[in-house]
Amino acid sequence: MNALKWNEDGLIPAIVQDAETGDVLMMAWMNESAFKKTLETGQTYFYSRSRRQEWHKGGTSGHVQHVESIWVDCDADVVLIKARQVGGACHEGYRSCFFRRVDSDGAFEISSKPIFDSGEVYGKPGPTPNPSKGSGELPSS
Amino acid sequence: MNALKWNEDGLIPAIVQDAETGDVLMMAWMNESAFKKTLETGQTYFYSRSRRQEWHKGGTSGHVQHVESIWVDCDADVVLIKARQVGGACHEGYRSCFFRRVDSDGAFEISSKPIFDSGEVYGKPGPTPNPSKGSGELPSS
Repeated sequence: MNALKWNEDGLIPAIVQDAETGDVLMMAWMNESAFKKTLETGQTYFYSRSRRQEWHKGGTSGHVQHVESIWVDCDADVVLIKARQVGGACHEGYRSCFFRRVDSDGAFEISSKPIFDSGEVYGKPGPTPNPSKGSGELPSS
Repeated sequence: MNALKWNEDGLIPAIVQDAETGDVLMMAWMNESAFKKTLETGQTYFYSRSRRQEWHKGGTSGHVQHVESIWVDCDADVVLIKARQVGGACHEGYRSCFFRRVDSDGAFEISSKPIFDSGEVYGKPGPTPNPSKGSGELPSS
């Protein structure tokens, strides 16, 4: 555990990969406490840099991630978590947070369909997916 | 392009996934220039925070990554690159940088076999893989 290389804020990037499909679902940050809870409980915990608090993935939505295995890279400063995803990983209603493709001009284009209504699940207005050429605007989150 | 959310150092994490096998190969950082070169050349470029310079993946080893598609996450602060990897992604001789598994106690265990001799490719001593329970020591890089 101590061999992990935490950054100057005590955090490490954690990539979550769907253990069944191989899709990369999300990347978020863990502090040591979130990492320990993830190891101990078998579900993912992260640390929100904007809210400055730990969070349990799926704690609100029920869309938890059941950890199958945890991997660490050669520099020990990134972890990879293979997990079974309940529902969707993305708070915008998509299975994966990587639902937009970057085209050769650098523009974003939505290339997936939402699998749940984020408004119903999180109690706020859902996304208004625009499958046409993306404007590249940031989500409000 | 401008819609990507660069961090306070002007960088964004870039996850590279093997377009053929789905394996996550590595995570590194890009500045805007490296991202543009990746878009323009179809091979991956990154920014080394320790060496404070841009680098072309495979520039020394020949182990380049041919970009198939680029994806951006919901917060526009992480990119995912699906690429065809020539040779291995890891400078330690492994196909993927995530060659060590973290066990339930948090200890590291090497769970892959090297596919090339990093000493030959990079001109320095190669790894001495120890498939037994890992000591968790950091690589020298």
